[in-house]
Amino acid sequence: MDNEIVAGIDIGGTNTVYGLVDKEGKILSEGKITTDTSPQADGFVKTLALEINKLLAGHKGYSLKGIGIGAPNGNYHKGTIELAPNLAWKGIVPFADKMKKEMGKPVVLTNDATAAAVGEMIFGGAKGIKDFIILTLGTGLGSGFVVNGEVVYGHTGFAGEYGHVIIIPGGRECGCGRRGCLETYVSATGIVRTAKILLEERKSKSVLREINPAVIDSKMVAEAAAGGDKLSLDAFDYTAEILALAIVNAVVVTSPEAIFLFGGLAKAGDLLFLPLKKYVDEFIQPVFRNTFDILPSAIPETNPAVLGAAALAWKEL
Amino acid sequence: MDNEIVAGIDIGGTNTVYGLVDKEGKILSEGKITTDTSPQADGFVKTLALEINKLLAGHKGYSLKGIGIGAPNGNYHKGTIELAPNLAWKGIVPFADKMKKEMGKPVVLTNDATAAAVGEMIFGGAKGIKDFIILTLGTGLGSGFVVNGEVVYGHTGFAGEYGHVIIIPGGRECGCGRRGCLETYVSATGIVRTAKILLEERKSKSVLREINPAVIDSKMVAEAAAGGDKLSLDAFDYTAEILALAIVNAVVVTSPEAIFLFGGLAKAGDLLFLPLKKYVDEFIQPVFRNTFDILPSAIPETNPAVLGAAALAWKEL
Repeated sequence: MDNEIVAGIDIGGTNTVYGLVDKEGKILSEGKITTDTSPQADGFVKTLALEINKLLAGHKGYSLKGIGIGAPNGNYHKGTIELAPNLAWKGIVPFADKMKKEMGKPVVLTNDATAAAVGEMIFGGAKGIKDFIILTLGTGLGSGFVVNGEVVYGHTGFAGEYGHVIIIPGGRECGCGRRGCLETYVSATGIVRTAKILLEERKSKSVLREINPAVIDSKMVAEAAAGGDKLSLDAFDYTAEILALAIVNAVVVTSPEAIFLFGGLAKAGDLLFLPLKKYVDEFIQPVFRNTFDILPSAIPETNPAVLGAAALAWKEL
Repeated sequence: MDNEIVAGIDIGGTNTVYGLVDKEGKILSEGKITTDTSPQADGFVKTLALEINKLLAGHKGYSLKGIGIGAPNGNYHKGTIELAPNLAWKGIVPFADKMKKEMGKPVVLTNDATAAAVGEMIFGGAKGIKDFIILTLGTGLGSGFVVNGEVVYGHTGFAGEYGHVIIIPGGRECGCGRRGCLETYVSATGIVRTAKILLEERKSKSVLREINPAVIDSKMVAEAAAGGDKLSLDAFDYTAEILALAIVNAVVVTSPEAIFLFGGLAKAGDLLFLPLKKYVDEFIQPVFRNTFDILPSAIPETNPAVLGAAALAWKEL
């Protein structure tokens, strides 16, 4: 009998990565193409289907059970990608339907951070955990909330947009048109904004002053902090303080057993986690004290998004 | 054959109210006793059981299916009342177990705001709505989150403590020992604090100045606002602004179809709802615009807590 596999696809603003994934979360093979920049998605769907069929051709004896897709502004209920600011496709694209027609297999689609949550649940550190939250700290901040073993999609299918919780009323301007959203503070771009503000506010020495401000990125801040640069450490401390506030505010809503942090900033390890835990202890509502763990994601860093999308397919199809 | 009924019990800091409720949400009879002030709950459980049995004796032909209880700091998972600041019982009281032993019937217990959510779901405006939030605006602010038709209890059983979301970092001192919690702004006591702050900040005329500040309550603020008192209207406006912020922040997490407001402040009607909707429109994250309604609770105001507790019994037992 055939072994079953699924395809996991992660659609990003620049690249789309995909892979064939078995039930244990092993990626049998993978590939990458440039995300289409034409206003219609049809051509891209055909190309993507072709590439996946090429991969499948290299794995005789396996049958494709279905396809999982993570995409920005992906709507789980409808299988659509809606008004995604970083993609060229305009309006509401019925991406799952198009892909299903092309491949003749069931397709399930959700937003990228939700896919990360499912990945954590099926292949990562959240196995057996029924209530958890994952925060993905990248260019922005994505999130997935899992309650009683089920991903929270909400009435619209867009639930879990915790990057756009207003954490500091009247605070930093956000790309969404509002002010004070969490991701303007807690993300790769957020910590760079913090570092640059500290550079302006202070007169103290910092290795960051030796870098052209226009090119400072979050890795440089992390490297400087790891080397003991006070200003960069303070940028991490402030990021951790705001993240702690966001975490204690999420805890009063869903009371999770664990919160997983994923992505670039989370990889900074103790630089982030030590001040984070200190502030969480300080801010936590008493009844929830010591009721949850804050952990780095246990999903391997190579192609986590493909694994998440594949996990979704395994879970739902 | 016997008709089935359940008992709904609402344990409050001062009084405990209870009633026999049929499947349609009709309260057949009800009663009220003073909540016990001894450090042990045992005597109170016996008294309460006795009173419920008295009610039952008046309804021959009905059989008691079970008992639902709403209580401050009620833990749904364990059936316990834990460290409730407004109750005399110390520590962790296994209230559901005690009641079950006394009555010989199944007992389900949860916190009072969660019971209100179940009441709204079974007997109120949330029939058929799978994703909603209820905010109960009383002395404090309670909440219940319903996701995909199920109440969110979380890992601890205490999920849905939205009164203690930190809405203004560093803001007003809260009874929980922290600062800036939502209920310090949006509740009967919160709006009174706002009105008194405005009285101090401003020199303008207000009918509230004719009242001894020590006795000003939220009804007086509502009456003054209804009579056109500018300062009191501004107190409602500010309360609505903070509530709007809290609502848009909850929407990004669970993306509900409706948000129900319950309790004293919600009864102020347009005084609260008009500015609230204006601020929600202003603050909402674009992808969630016009995806949810904000509605007054449809649960009748007489003994809503008893109905909520009874609804829980009907739902769970």
